[in-house]
Amino acid sequence: MKEKFMQRAIELSRLGMTNDEGGPFGAVVVRGDEVIAEGNNKVTSENDPTMHAEVTAIRNACKSLGTFDLSGCEIYTSCEPCLMCLGAIYWARLDKIYYANTKEDAAEIGFDDKFIYEELDLPKEKRKLKMEQLLHTEAKKVFKEWEEKEERIKY
Amino acid sequence: MKEKFMQRAIELSRLGMTNDEGGPFGAVVVRGDEVIAEGNNKVTSENDPTMHAEVTAIRNACKSLGTFDLSGCEIYTSCEPCLMCLGAIYWARLDKIYYANTKEDAAEIGFDDKFIYEELDLPKEKRKLKMEQLLHTEAKKVFKEWEEKEERIKY
Repeated sequence: MKEKFMQRAIELSRLGMTNDEGGPFGAVVVRGDEVIAEGNNKVTSENDPTMHAEVTAIRNACKSLGTFDLSGCEIYTSCEPCLMCLGAIYWARLDKIYYANTKEDAAEIGFDDKFIYEELDLPKEKRKLKMEQLLHTEAKKVFKEWEEKEERIKY
Repeated sequence: MKEKFMQRAIELSRLGMTNDEGGPFGAVVVRGDEVIAEGNNKVTSENDPTMHAEVTAIRNACKSLGTFDLSGCEIYTSCEPCLMCLGAIYWARLDKIYYANTKEDAAEIGFDDKFIYEELDLPKEKRKLKMEQLLHTEAKKVFKEWEEKEERIKY
């Protein structure tokens, strides 16, 4: 069963590539024996840098199930998730990740996954992407208001 | 100017919250003196765990400019980006991040940003979220095919 799901993820990675939708990456979200949703990389065809296979499959699964919480589901992805997709998988509360290619494989064919992981290991001031903090006190007030809000939906 | 853009990001964080669209987070993408796009957290209202303020602002900016590459733009976010958003910012090639609240502030009001950063610092086998590799050889073939493809769009 696991192999079947991964085969589908790999098939999607090939289809997305041959259809010129984006990079060679595919993913499926599964619950038990059932495929809930599929996705492939559509960055270049949709002009959306966040449309990696995993993010696309997660969004489709959430739409299909009418929830932002995919607890009880697992994701099969043709390549080890990049930092963005790994974050998305945590937020979606998926139970487990199955992957095939590694981030080193992705780097070899020109995708920056590994660079981004390496950046994160550096202290902020040494990263290529600079960060600067502004207006902390003003923003913190909104967090306080959130805490005091009665009917907030937690997630 | 910087303060003005951050004030707008903070304003969006408050508006999203009071309109019950999601958590108290807002962001704007800016090029020079111009706001290209705005976004706020819509996770709970859209049932989309990837609709954080930064991802939403990036998607809107890409749509507005008709590109997946936001080089030359900067992002102002009312809270330090989570791992997913940080990844999205790298992929979108934004030049700089301005933030107000920190991930520790977010953790204090119940958002898991800090937990996800901590998970990443652990070796894979010690993480809460388990990962398993399958069918590497089959997936690697598709990467090979990508390399041999003539008209691929690199990004």
